Amino acid sequence: MRFPFPLALAALVPLAPTLAAQDTIQFTPTVGYPTFAVRDPVLRIQPGTVLVSNTNFGAYYTEQGGAFPGEVGPIYVEGATTNDMLVIEIIRVRPNYEFAASRINPNFGGLASDVRVRLLNDPIPARRYVWRLDHEQMTGTTELPDSRMGSITIDLRPMLGRIAVAPRGEEAFAGLWPGDFGGNLDAPEVKEGTTVYLPIFHDGAYFYFGDGHARQGQGEVAGTGLETSMDVTLKIDVIKGKTIDWPRLEDDEYIMVAGSARPLIDAFRLAHVELVEWLEEYGFGRWDAYALLGQVAESSVANIVDPIYTVVAKFPKRYLGQ
Amino acid sequence: MRFPFPLALAALVPLAPTLAAQDTIQFTPTVGYPTFAVRDPVLRIQPGTVLVSNTNFGAYYTEQGGAFPGEVGPIYVEGATTNDMLVIEIIRVRPNYEFAASRINPNFGGLASDVRVRLLNDPIPARRYVWRLDHEQMTGTTELPDSRMGSITIDLRPMLGRIAVAPRGEEAFAGLWPGDFGGNLDAPEVKEGTTVYLPIFHDGAYFYFGDGHARQGQGEVAGTGLETSMDVTLKIDVIKGKTIDWPRLEDDEYIMVAGSARPLIDAFRLAHVELVEWLEEYGFGRWDAYALLGQVAESSVANIVDPIYTVVAKFPKRYLGQ
Amino acid sequence: MRFPFPLALAALVPLAPTLAAQDTIQFTPTVGYPTFAVRDPVLRIQPGTVLVSNTNFGAYYTEQGGAFPGEVGPIYVEGATTNDMLVIEIIRVRPNYEFAASRINPNFGGLASDVRVRLLNDPIPARRYVWRLDHEQMTGTTELPDSRMGSITIDLRPMLGRIAVAPRGEEAFAGLWPGDFGGNLDAPEVKEGTTVYLPIFHDGAYFYFGDGHARQGQGEVAGTGLETSMDVTLKIDVIKGKTIDWPRLEDDEYIMVAGSARPLIDAFRLAHVELVEWLEEYGFGRWDAYALLGQVAESSVANIVDPIYTVVAKFPKRYLGQ
Amino acid sequence: MRFPFPLALAALVPLAPTLAAQDTIQFTPTVGYPTFAVRDPVLRIQPGTVLVSNTNFGAYYTEQGGAFPGEVGPIYVEGATTNDMLVIEIIRVRPNYEFAASRINPNFGGLASDVRVRLLNDPIPARRYVWRLDHEQMTGTTELPDSRMGSITIDLRPMLGRIAVAPRGEEAFAGLWPGDFGGNLDAPEVKEGTTVYLPIFHDGAYFYFGDGHARQGQGEVAGTGLETSMDVTLKIDVIKGKTIDWPRLEDDEYIMVAGSARPLIDAFRLAHVELVEWLEEYGFGRWDAYALLGQVAESSVANIVDPIYTVVAKFPKRYLGQ
Repeated sequence: MRFPFPLALAALVPLAPTLAAQDTIQFTPTVGYPTFAVRDPVLRIQPGTVLVSNTNFGAYYTEQGGAFPGEVGPIYVEGATTNDMLVIEIIRVRPNYEFAASRINPNFGGLASDVRVRLLNDPIPARRYVWRLDHEQMTGTTELPDSRMGSITIDLRPMLGRIAVAPRGEEAFAGLWPGDFGGNLDAPEVKEGTTVYLPIFHDGAYFYFGDGHARQGQGEVAGTGLETSMDVTLKIDVIKGKTIDWPRLEDDEYIMVAGSARPLIDAFRLAHVELVEWLEEYGFGRWDAYALLGQVAESSVANIVDPIYTVVAKFPKRYLGQ
Repeated sequence: MRFPFPLALAALVPLAPTLAAQDTIQFTPTVGYPTFAVRDPVLRIQPGTVLVSNTNFGAYYTEQGGAFPGEVGPIYVEGATTNDMLVIEIIRVRPNYEFAASRINPNFGGLASDVRVRLLNDPIPARRYVWRLDHEQMTGTTELPDSRMGSITIDLRPMLGRIAVAPRGEEAFAGLWPGDFGGNLDAPEVKEGTTVYLPIFHDGAYFYFGDGHARQGQGEVAGTGLETSMDVTLKIDVIKGKTIDWPRLEDDEYIMVAGSARPLIDAFRLAHVELVEWLEEYGFGRWDAYALLGQVAESSVANIVDPIYTVVAKFPKRYLGQ
Repeated sequence: MRFPFPLALAALVPLAPTLAAQDTIQFTPTVGYPTFAVRDPVLRIQPGTVLVSNTNFGAYYTEQGGAFPGEVGPIYVEGATTNDMLVIEIIRVRPNYEFAASRINPNFGGLASDVRVRLLNDPIPARRYVWRLDHEQMTGTTELPDSRMGSITIDLRPMLGRIAVAPRGEEAFAGLWPGDFGGNLDAPEVKEGTTVYLPIFHDGAYFYFGDGHARQGQGEVAGTGLETSMDVTLKIDVIKGKTIDWPRLEDDEYIMVAGSARPLIDAFRLAHVELVEWLEEYGFGRWDAYALLGQVAESSVANIVDPIYTVVAKFPKRYLGQ
Repeated sequence: MRFPFPLALAALVPLAPTLAAQDTIQFTPTVGYPTFAVRDPVLRIQPGTVLVSNTNFGAYYTEQGGAFPGEVGPIYVEGATTNDMLVIEIIRVRPNYEFAASRINPNFGGLASDVRVRLLNDPIPARRYVWRLDHEQMTGTTELPDSRMGSITIDLRPMLGRIAVAPRGEEAFAGLWPGDFGGNLDAPEVKEGTTVYLPIFHDGAYFYFGDGHARQGQGEVAGTGLETSMDVTLKIDVIKGKTIDWPRLEDDEYIMVAGSARPLIDAFRLAHVELVEWLEEYGFGRWDAYALLGQVAESSVANIVDPIYTVVAKFPKRYLGQ
């Protein structure tokens, strides 16, 4: 079997077996790509595989202006077709580096003018904050140079900013983009214990992941979370014969839809409309579902900084009935 | 005790006793107004008064197309000036009627075309759901005529949709409007245990409240919560010599700002920018505060159905330092 | 002839003659109001009256920070009911003062953060430009202190920023607001030769006008036009038994709808949807009209600075058929 | 010299000379691509070349649901670098086919719910209109099946919907996308007599064009113009050592910037902010330029249907000074 891998992986290719379902595979990525797109896979797996891996590491985590290391992938999932959906069970996401960095940026951020929200005001300054991570206590600590308290320690809530399949057709979106293909959702809900369902636009799905955040606020309003690299364990599976339009998520408490668009209201609406359609699958009438969302829907603004924004619409599973 | 009502107001005013601070007053409203505006007060109180009252009751709660009963107020707070801020401690909000109603509406709602989001699509149908409230169990139950489960029972989380002062100048906003004056925030956070701080645009503040929701989802996406009347206990006070631009809220866990605007992103931004400015009062540097919001901010989309939308930006009090 | 002014209104009303249709009346306003609302009329006229008047003059036109003089009105139109529409034929709008002022403002403007678009950037500076008007040549000239050319002379295109009826119910919108009641449309199309049709929300219509702009760009992007006072001649009439939802305009070339909303796309859409409905009155099928707009619609962004924005959608009259 | 052309062009490759500047070249495209991206060029030219060519023809123009033929390009411009800008002088754009098609579509369009503006309303119907083009009279005629007039004839105003360079990095945007790279601007201003300036993100520029509209309304509100194929003459040149952030346009009357973004206000703002910066190059002070736009700016909403919208901001050249 041939795996046309990028450069540095060439040596590994001949050794990479086709994995049997349910196998656990240890995978050490050696390349990171700057776009979500169909390209030669870095790995081929069987549905049901548990992948033990890590996000890519790079200068982005260690120095001001360092380049982002790019995503892990694409991983080709054997037998996955455009009539199916991809299922990613997030078993483990934990920081594996003792520092994380956060920033504010004159060209990128939610509460100031930036490259997409151009105004005549002077831009805000750039700043970089280095956080020391305590992997035992699961806390992060940084200096706050202009603040009375001098420093702050916060709890970590590790998550993956990016989880994707290749987008439709020949499109290639830069790593900053979320979309119906998943991508840079920057949703704190993409954490241990959550299962992510993704549509499939190409046979094999071409799965990508990366962009660890040791913690990120809702909206990621300043443009970054606590950016660092992660150890990751994912179970990657396929549900045959079922398609979806937008990424769906599920944890113990909620079924959720991650909708991405600008303006923010359109992201909010399409996440909730897709949630109504998911509720119809559970036996709710369309208008009953809509009416009920008025009382029990919850939602989270995941990011307001990416090229399009992401909103996660949530329905409590306790109200799904049996 | 006498309550100076509209119409006969002039005659009654001289008789209306000035309440001593810290008094508890029982007030039964007899009129409801359709706008937030300066008008003859229905009551005059001293700062520090605990008000035991109820929201207005009307046909809106009992029949399809019934008129909304309007808000309670305005209540004139003695000594409150435009250099101060009003403080409303929400001690109690409980349904006092055995039913609540929710609706979907072709002219008003967040996931369909409506009077402000006009499109060429056919409008959606109108529906009204009657919920039977169990005040002991704090649950509500309704029929779901088109759904497999036939009916549903949900927990109640009572709140006030509207809490306001009179807006600036001679403006009069219909009861559906939120704004910097508070108003129809439709924020689930306006519940027992929350303190609401409001700017004051006229001496006396001209405080209003109403629009009970036995439960409301985030975004109030279908246009209504479980609409019903409430018993309400509020402590109404004034902080002298301190002004704010937008309503602030506080509970055990968070300091919060309720920003209202269309588009949704502008509501989101102004709530967070005002939150940054509040954090500066706590000793955070401006850019430190902004950067930190990227990691620890939470937020809630309160409504996406009113003439302008409301977003509540939240900062965990545990990170405020001592 | 009597003009029933506020304050002494009760005494004057019995004396105010009812004007005969087609009369021309010369009216000199002596009061300006800060809101569009139902209040005691300054004048009562018969439908068909030609009103020769002027906009209010005030410190706004003469000094930095000077107060805006408010609108002329309300004018009560006898026989106008909520089943009718008001017709304002703009016969003459000409500057009557030798100066105009334009500004940029840190709190108000379209290309910078302002009170509704709050961001963390530093605000832009305030500036005031005085323009000398040449009423013969119909030009205006101002200094450009930071520009190589030193000064500039531009052609005048006089218009009225505000043309309104009282909004529905007890609402009172400050003079900056446009809406379905007209108001501060800030549309360059409201000029000599244009007829404006307004919905009527109260018997008598309560017509207002004011806010002369000797010239204004599309979008009024910096927040003001060439603000000055105007001589105005309007024919004010009523079309019985016909109602509209949003202001309509007509000149030799176009039928037009002025839709006002935030976000901008909603203003754009509702202007065009109402235009489709107007085309249906002309005999176009709904989908034919929509399809045809794709090829021949024109539009103008009137303002992006007011509390809600205004877009004027236009259809060429030459394509209306006979 | 080697030109790695796509399939059908293989035979031509060895014959394709490097063109001398100022040459006129006749080029018949044989392939159309579905994305704007760096790929093997279909042609290499010298700056200053006049290209006589045509847009691609395909089933999109002849049958319901027919596939879009894709863009012509990429054309590699020798010597063009990322420090330069590309200059496209539009000498001729004329329909070369006797029919054009326009559509309304339930999944794509500006005045109804669609794939990006998802709502719970039922979708609108699909329709296709065939227009017979008269190349002499420059008119188009179609049936209006539901309209009293039965059919309509309109004047043609031919334009190119798409004019682009390859976007930055490895990104590949589908042909529906506009952006800072140009692309699917769908701006009626891209017509004979207009010069388009584009930024360059890759050496060689990788120029694309296509998507003829025999006529298109402002906003392209129904989703299409009069779609047909065109004969095209373009002079393609480079200005060395000058970079721009967004496409600029120029005709006899205006200098213009085409800004693309969602929401619409962001497209509006960035077009105008870039216009302010262009005016600074002409010697205007920044705040003078901003203030002046308030009086003399014009603008055109080019499209409100593409993945991001396009607004063209315009400044009259007569006010540029000498």
